[in-house]
Amino acid sequence: MPGSVPRIVMKFGGTSVGDIERIKAVAERVKKQKETGCDVLVVVSAMAGETNKLVGFCDALSELHDPCEYDSIVATGEQVTSGLLAIALQKLGVNARSFAGWQVPIRTDSQHGKASLDTIDGARLLGCMAEGIVPVVAGFQGVGPDGRVTTLGRGGSDTSAVALAAAVKADRCDIYTDVDGIYTTDPRIVAKARKLEKITYEEMLELASVGAKVLQTRSVGLAMREGVRVQVLSSFVDGPALVEGKLPGSLVVDEDEIVEKKLVTGIAYSRDEAKLSIRRIPDRPGIAAAIFGPLSEANVNVDMIVQSTGADGTTNMTFTTSKTDLPRAISTLESVQASVEYEELVTDADVVKISVVGVGMRSHAGVASTMFRTLSERSINIQVISTSEIKVSVLVAAEYAELAVRALHTAYGLDNV
Amino acid sequence: MPGSVPRIVMKFGGTSVGDIERIKAVAERVKKQKETGCDVLVVVSAMAGETNKLVGFCDALSELHDPCEYDSIVATGEQVTSGLLAIALQKLGVNARSFAGWQVPIRTDSQHGKASLDTIDGARLLGCMAEGIVPVVAGFQGVGPDGRVTTLGRGGSDTSAVALAAAVKADRCDIYTDVDGIYTTDPRIVAKARKLEKITYEEMLELASVGAKVLQTRSVGLAMREGVRVQVLSSFVDGPALVEGKLPGSLVVDEDEIVEKKLVTGIAYSRDEAKLSIRRIPDRPGIAAAIFGPLSEANVNVDMIVQSTGADGTTNMTFTTSKTDLPRAISTLESVQASVEYEELVTDADVVKISVVGVGMRSHAGVASTMFRTLSERSINIQVISTSEIKVSVLVAAEYAELAVRALHTAYGLDNV
Repeated sequence: MPGSVPRIVMKFGGTSVGDIERIKAVAERVKKQKETGCDVLVVVSAMAGETNKLVGFCDALSELHDPCEYDSIVATGEQVTSGLLAIALQKLGVNARSFAGWQVPIRTDSQHGKASLDTIDGARLLGCMAEGIVPVVAGFQGVGPDGRVTTLGRGGSDTSAVALAAAVKADRCDIYTDVDGIYTTDPRIVAKARKLEKITYEEMLELASVGAKVLQTRSVGLAMREGVRVQVLSSFVDGPALVEGKLPGSLVVDEDEIVEKKLVTGIAYSRDEAKLSIRRIPDRPGIAAAIFGPLSEANVNVDMIVQSTGADGTTNMTFTTSKTDLPRAISTLESVQASVEYEELVTDADVVKISVVGVGMRSHAGVASTMFRTLSERSINIQVISTSEIKVSVLVAAEYAELAVRALHTAYGLDNV
Repeated sequence: MPGSVPRIVMKFGGTSVGDIERIKAVAERVKKQKETGCDVLVVVSAMAGETNKLVGFCDALSELHDPCEYDSIVATGEQVTSGLLAIALQKLGVNARSFAGWQVPIRTDSQHGKASLDTIDGARLLGCMAEGIVPVVAGFQGVGPDGRVTTLGRGGSDTSAVALAAAVKADRCDIYTDVDGIYTTDPRIVAKARKLEKITYEEMLELASVGAKVLQTRSVGLAMREGVRVQVLSSFVDGPALVEGKLPGSLVVDEDEIVEKKLVTGIAYSRDEAKLSIRRIPDRPGIAAAIFGPLSEANVNVDMIVQSTGADGTTNMTFTTSKTDLPRAISTLESVQASVEYEELVTDADVVKISVVGVGMRSHAGVASTMFRTLSERSINIQVISTSEIKVSVLVAAEYAELAVRALHTAYGLDNV
């Protein structure tokens, strides 16, 4: 709508609202944004440490606690922050009021502890904004079909923010965090990493899921489906996103918004990987199902899979899981050894997954071969390879992580010069 | 209803649920009560210290914080305890679920920070109990007409418990606290103080409002109006109220339930008193209104009032307020000195109010004269006297507090022998 007031959702995570002074600073930032003539809606997490404290209480009472009660307890963290920020805003002369999830209402399914968003009624929030009031919504929570409080699971505040942005048709959803944007790779490893002005949803999804922990994967998927433009920026660096076109952070947008598509946008790595090799399985139909069926039932997430068949009528199966899932994967595989008739299970948690990501590689061959050549030149042995339309991932020994990331960053021309 | 299952409301205050171990102990106690074949509904306060922490956050952000936001923040304390106790009960094999005020719903007016109860819909709670589930309700809170969270003010959890007991037509409302009952006077002052098995609502009201801080005044008034039988008992002493007729605490009931009415039931004292004397006011009509009107507007609660007229056509007015209200009372009176034309304002915060209370004194003269004689024999000077149907109160110098209470306790035959 040309001429209408821009509408911005601002989301602040736990460290951004970690204490009273930080909450005051956030209020100042919201005030500045409001003063540019925007309608503003704020979404907050619990104060850093609060959620862990509440979870600790639950754990101390019962290792297998009722997820309904867990949700009701843990959701109070965000409720407190939203009220405190509303008070801080009022103190600065900004009209504001808090909303718990059930007050919006933010409706979810009944999967307590990891609920999925169902519908958000934006009417009350839009009514508030029309009156010049800044709604401050408790993130991470909603209300189930039976009227009980639900939570979206860890990191769910990003998802809340994106969903609320969609519900009120916001022009942008700004996620304030402790980094100032999305980089071509981890700046702690590569000093020459560059901040990206724009990145596509697809690329962000691949980067988020392979270890760049800036935005929660679920929230990026939702933003893509709903067409919400998301900016990642720092709540600790001054000068918020006031003028479009001069955004201080990184914008996650649709591919159409990016004119010059780079071949490779970023390099991600994940140390949370473990490799399992099942050796000398009698090669007959149904082997994959006999292995991955039980793993799936045991809730083990399997990532890269490679199968190689030997000359002797046996086959080898290699795959990766997260380090957390490794013990469960091992015990599951041991329980099926008799039926699968494999000879040996070998595991290795000393591995790292390196991924190069970019929408540009769809139309260009050669990305994978550049990767393999670059690693080969450094004598880095590739253990497993997997590819998707916009990503090539390899598993290498953990000791090569930094070397591999730096070499690839240079090879794809990403270095900041 | 003869033959029906007894229904008990159990209310636990902040120190009773002060940490995880205490919450576990409360769960054991609730389990025992349930195992006697009762239907049980539990009401909880916030863990001791939590409310103060949350209030501290609000104060740190703004000395004049929005009471709507204050309520939303502070109410989380009880929400956490109710969830934790539900988990602790489930761990013991007792079916339980938490209820926030809005989930019951407990409807209140919109006076945030000191809301009054409107209606409580007992249907969901009764439905729970019918299924063998123990509802654990967050005390102290409700939901206003606009759907925002309200609180009933400090001590409001007792009121929640009594109101819920009325809503579900409970046979009794047990208030677990850090004392094991209601005593004839403060046992810290009088070693021979006796625990009362029964006390009337009216007596309890007078005792509560004059300094016996066992039950919140509002909750007693509500219990009287609704005919809820209230038991005060300790959550720290073992052996809960399992068998009627052998109740371990003190029962607050209707006068009809008490067969032998004592002349004097108890002696209360309050140190939170301040005396103000306005001297030499021109004695003309409307003086009292000119003084107490402005005080009322300034929210100063006035208690005992004595007017004495001198021979010279002037009058003196003496009254008491709480120590908290004293500065406000002084500044108010100074502001009306010109119009009231009084000569002098004298204040004294070094006073104590002693009260003897008993429904029996309605039909017996001589209670007041016993009091005056007893104090006179100890050379204790009475500064102000006020009486009600079932109470005689006197104001004396603070240094005589203990002496006066002990002497009166003996004089009225209350000593435990």
